[in-house]
Amino acid sequence: MTMKMNDYIEIVDKKLDEYMTIQYPEDIFKAMKYTVTLPGKRLRPVMCLESCRVFGGNYEDAIPTACAIEMLHAQTLIHDDLPCMDNDDFRRGKPTNHKVFGEANAVLAGDALLTFAPQIILKNSKHLGSEKLIKIMEEYFQAAGAYGVIAGQVVDIESEKTNTPHPSFGHPLPQGARAVTLDFIHTHKTADLFKLSLRTGAIIADAAEAQLEGITEFGQTLGVAFQIADDILDEISTFEEMGKTLGKDKNAGKLTYTSLYGLDESKNKLACLLNDCYDIMKKFDVKSEVFDEIISGIKKRVGI
Amino acid sequence: MTMKMNDYIEIVDKKLDEYMTIQYPEDIFKAMKYTVTLPGKRLRPVMCLESCRVFGGNYEDAIPTACAIEMLHAQTLIHDDLPCMDNDDFRRGKPTNHKVFGEANAVLAGDALLTFAPQIILKNSKHLGSEKLIKIMEEYFQAAGAYGVIAGQVVDIESEKTNTPHPSFGHPLPQGARAVTLDFIHTHKTADLFKLSLRTGAIIADAAEAQLEGITEFGQTLGVAFQIADDILDEISTFEEMGKTLGKDKNAGKLTYTSLYGLDESKNKLACLLNDCYDIMKKFDVKSEVFDEIISGIKKRVGI
Repeated sequence: MTMKMNDYIEIVDKKLDEYMTIQYPEDIFKAMKYTVTLPGKRLRPVMCLESCRVFGGNYEDAIPTACAIEMLHAQTLIHDDLPCMDNDDFRRGKPTNHKVFGEANAVLAGDALLTFAPQIILKNSKHLGSEKLIKIMEEYFQAAGAYGVIAGQVVDIESEKTNTPHPSFGHPLPQGARAVTLDFIHTHKTADLFKLSLRTGAIIADAAEAQLEGITEFGQTLGVAFQIADDILDEISTFEEMGKTLGKDKNAGKLTYTSLYGLDESKNKLACLLNDCYDIMKKFDVKSEVFDEIISGIKKRVGI
Repeated sequence: MTMKMNDYIEIVDKKLDEYMTIQYPEDIFKAMKYTVTLPGKRLRPVMCLESCRVFGGNYEDAIPTACAIEMLHAQTLIHDDLPCMDNDDFRRGKPTNHKVFGEANAVLAGDALLTFAPQIILKNSKHLGSEKLIKIMEEYFQAAGAYGVIAGQVVDIESEKTNTPHPSFGHPLPQGARAVTLDFIHTHKTADLFKLSLRTGAIIADAAEAQLEGITEFGQTLGVAFQIADDILDEISTFEEMGKTLGKDKNAGKLTYTSLYGLDESKNKLACLLNDCYDIMKKFDVKSEVFDEIISGIKKRVGI
């Protein structure tokens, strides 16, 4: 059965609401639920479900894992928005978690989501069997931690220092070194969760090793493309369209695609990567209207 | 083979150092390692190893899990010490994590430890088999998250509000309600990690269900006793002895054993609970010099 993007989003939204039941102590569960259930495109869970489907699995088997990855994504947003990190007041058009629940609860809500998410997988996917569940746990830990999104976030924060040009001597690092750093940030901060979504979906579907490699390449390419689009939109979009304060990365002197390559070159690179995504899908015989929709959605938003 | 407390501590310290290898990005791994390897009594990992041994297991099988629980403990310390939480400058006689690495890195180091710890278990305990590993993961998530230590921390923070007496009307909550809240805080903030340590050790040793119940009761009782001792020491000890700033809970108006029952009554309750610990050990036929040593160590520190 072919699925549409909106079918998946509806399923994910309903399940997220169900999983995020308010329990005692209410303050923490309310703070967790707030960010997890902010309206969003649910890209990561959708990719997980669709990856499961295209490799011959039953997407319903992947629902707990898909929702858990959305919870992990929410965790990264809550902590990234903290005053000591990016200090953001708005996210998806609403006040950020710490603005509503206070900093202490925002830190704790993020912490709680990091273990609540895999707990949701274990509680609701027992029929997958212990061996597959262990594989999913390994993928989750790898992407969530110091080898994954956190590595990206740390280097992203550091880039504020290394990317600021000295008034007399220019940039402290040559363009090449900054390009490598930027690749590292995009790969870990963004592509790692895309790969996690796609890989776990494929694992649940018992995909072959070659298929797993293919979908990983797809996730890496799409993830970097998505982040380049985000860098571009940070320059050309509006608060109303994005639901968050824009231009902050640029003002903070952060290393971004547009700061390193300029707007036009960034758009060119983005178009190339999105074409690569189609090529990878062809090469690994992945037919997916949903993946097509995600790619064309990025093109449309950036206007390429 | 009977083991001594110090034998275990030596093993744990050596392994923690090995597991916490500095990798790229160095900032995050250094911050993680800093708090994990601060000298300490290693009570939780020691309890895990000894629980495995007393139930007939090979304590070496429990080393990765024991070390992971110490990492989780360090995570709770790093985040509890943050300016937006307890705002502590010292821990184990050294500057707290955010004082050394900055707030952003301290938040991220805590986050990273939450998934690094179970990753250490999975990477180094494959021979335990997937089913047992899933059980250990379930125990870990339950204790680490919103049903465990985080529930305790949230209610602990809230207690600053509900425990402050109004100048005209006295306490906003009756003594009975505050006693229930205090029990909740101690159970989750402290006893949950004790139970996690003891239960996972017992699970690794294939302990019977009744033994698992017994060691859980022991962990609950010892955990609450340990926290009462901590509340008492917060009043009667010194910075030099404890390695952290004292009297902060009292000054913040937090709900503690001594604030609710006074010093003498707290000491009586502590003595009773420690006797209960011995009774539980007898009842479940647990013979352990190490557990004896932990109990007598608490008595000695508090002077009862």
